[in-house]
Amino acid sequence: MKLITFLTDFGTKSGYVAQMKGVAAGITDARLVDITHEITPHNIRQGAFVLHTVVPYFPVGTVHVAVVDPGVGTERKGLLITARSHILVGPDNGLLTPTAHLLGDFTAYEITNDKYMFPSVSHTFHGRDIFTPVAAHITNGVPFEQIGRRVTDFVDLDFGQGEVANKSATGKVIHIDRFGNIITNITGFQLLEVLQYGKKVMVFIGKNRRELSFVQSYGFVKKRQLLATIGSSNYLEIGVNQGNAAKKLSVKEDDDIKILFS
Amino acid sequence: MKLITFLTDFGTKSGYVAQMKGVAAGITDARLVDITHEITPHNIRQGAFVLHTVVPYFPVGTVHVAVVDPGVGTERKGLLITARSHILVGPDNGLLTPTAHLLGDFTAYEITNDKYMFPSVSHTFHGRDIFTPVAAHITNGVPFEQIGRRVTDFVDLDFGQGEVANKSATGKVIHIDRFGNIITNITGFQLLEVLQYGKKVMVFIGKNRRELSFVQSYGFVKKRQLLATIGSSNYLEIGVNQGNAAKKLSVKEDDDIKILFS
Amino acid sequence: MKLITFLTDFGTKSGYVAQMKGVAAGITDARLVDITHEITPHNIRQGAFVLHTVVPYFPVGTVHVAVVDPGVGTERKGLLITARSHILVGPDNGLLTPTAHLLGDFTAYEITNDKYMFPSVSHTFHGRDIFTPVAAHITNGVPFEQIGRRVTDFVDLDFGQGEVANKSATGKVIHIDRFGNIITNITGFQLLEVLQYGKKVMVFIGKNRRELSFVQSYGFVKKRQLLATIGSSNYLEIGVNQGNAAKKLSVKEDDDIKILFS
Repeated sequence: MKLITFLTDFGTKSGYVAQMKGVAAGITDARLVDITHEITPHNIRQGAFVLHTVVPYFPVGTVHVAVVDPGVGTERKGLLITARSHILVGPDNGLLTPTAHLLGDFTAYEITNDKYMFPSVSHTFHGRDIFTPVAAHITNGVPFEQIGRRVTDFVDLDFGQGEVANKSATGKVIHIDRFGNIITNITGFQLLEVLQYGKKVMVFIGKNRRELSFVQSYGFVKKRQLLATIGSSNYLEIGVNQGNAAKKLSVKEDDDIKILFS
Repeated sequence: MKLITFLTDFGTKSGYVAQMKGVAAGITDARLVDITHEITPHNIRQGAFVLHTVVPYFPVGTVHVAVVDPGVGTERKGLLITARSHILVGPDNGLLTPTAHLLGDFTAYEITNDKYMFPSVSHTFHGRDIFTPVAAHITNGVPFEQIGRRVTDFVDLDFGQGEVANKSATGKVIHIDRFGNIITNITGFQLLEVLQYGKKVMVFIGKNRRELSFVQSYGFVKKRQLLATIGSSNYLEIGVNQGNAAKKLSVKEDDDIKILFS
Repeated sequence: MKLITFLTDFGTKSGYVAQMKGVAAGITDARLVDITHEITPHNIRQGAFVLHTVVPYFPVGTVHVAVVDPGVGTERKGLLITARSHILVGPDNGLLTPTAHLLGDFTAYEITNDKYMFPSVSHTFHGRDIFTPVAAHITNGVPFEQIGRRVTDFVDLDFGQGEVANKSATGKVIHIDRFGNIITNITGFQLLEVLQYGKKVMVFIGKNRRELSFVQSYGFVKKRQLLATIGSSNYLEIGVNQGNAAKKLSVKEDDDIKILFS
């Protein structure tokens, strides 16, 4: 089954996303699946975060079109990246690279062949005019080498990764979801080596200092109570059982976090 | 044609919904259709309401995945319910049962067979790790009996149903839609037996007391005027022609409503 | 490949859109694609604008269901319009006609044959009960003549088109997108005949008078700076590079715009 996904900062109020889907449907019979269109406008880092939490769940062969593209119309390149049989298409601004690094070995191509672009390429919407048609042609079997030349110079974006020591961990808030859960860049892989579920931890975040339980899931604490857990994307997150932690603690993306335990 | 629908309270800003779709696409070639992801976080009753207004419009054989799941990671069961060839999958917290009752005779199974779950089940996201893969395998023909054991004990949620007498009706506000239309739990079936279109009714709702026309549709009253009608899901609703009734009357979900007529 | 698109003002919180998709899936195996459901409630003009920017990007044969329908339940007709092998279905209130005019020669039919409607047609939701089943049957090959009779009297909506002279252009704000970009009804086709990229223009909009650069894309000015450009739908737009022009200038839809150049 052929699949194309879409991740953008376009919102769903205007016709931009649908224009991309129309272009795709004119080239391929691949299924078209939305990841999200609610990335904060121009926030490459947030787009890169959401993309890297989603792509590994899709079957290999899926082509992911990602467009958070404040540099559209300037000289920034367009990229096609293949990594373990997943394919990523989008601007060369760091949006794609955390996913590529997560998947492992990858190869990048600069998109140059206008044979696979929309007949008239606009200066403001390469998502529709370049990235989507390239993705659609890929699902039809066009070889990567036909799209453009291999490149090794591209913008590389690093979320950073939190640091974990024997009795502490430090990192940053990388995402706040709809529930107000505060997701950090401290991975569960690191933290679970030195900290067990059921322990108390002291959390410093924003202007707060709170003693919380580190638990397996939200239901392990009482309603409206704060907790620390490893979320479904394997990052440490701070939440409130059936409540909004980000509001309760006035925390926002990019804030620092430190936790102490023993 | 195989179909899976998704109803959640996840919003569309994060990658949660797309992760579910990726998991589904790895197992089945069923079409993936969104019902909504804008259920108020943790509001089981609202999720159950929307689900029961939608499921009957889908073809039999459709598998509906519903995830409003504040109890995830605790001991609450996972359920598979079959009712008149519609299939419902989700947590055992009442989310699925109003739809099951509406459809008629139904059979419930507790989901226990980890052969049909994601290889590593998280503590915080059974929508992705259990309900979606189970739904996907069902579309591939896995028999219900393979998913788990039949159960007769489950959380049953009842919207209640308004009461209709000869000259009055009482009930509750069950949903407010995007237009600000106020949807109640008084059914059209009941009300139309004792009240005819064109009549005046006296409505007590929130802190308001208003005389309104009971009409067949919004266009029967002037622009910006209040009205009472039977909405498209066969419930009494209070609206404003091209306006927002919930704002105008400061009404919210769960408020009481009473109407008098003669 | 069969395709049906949906454009509505229903939002995605309630089950209305999903009910339409369920009805469609019961009739046809066409792919179901969202254009948008975030049209401002009852704003026919906004819906018509978004529709006409999207339809030309879809393959011929696609059936587009559009529902912004404040007159539902009154005597307004239902329309089926065919234009250059694109098919439009929706209420006769002007929503479809700008797209039809853009495509060129078109033929309109009044929807009258209840054989192709939902068995029980509600008074408040013709999107689900009439327009969607008609669209679904069309994808199955039902001839247009079976749907109803040809008509030449229908509500015609005209965005108007801005006026361009040798040294000036005047028009209106027709849409504001998620980024706060201000999209006008002055077309790029007209403007590029008399104005070159790189020139300065004097813009009068809302209560503002600003000298801006007319550039090929957003990246041609510094971050946070205002600019004028031809957007991806070929209309003059006023934007801010990585910022929100509508907020910055307190501009809203329907405001007048005038630009001077030399």
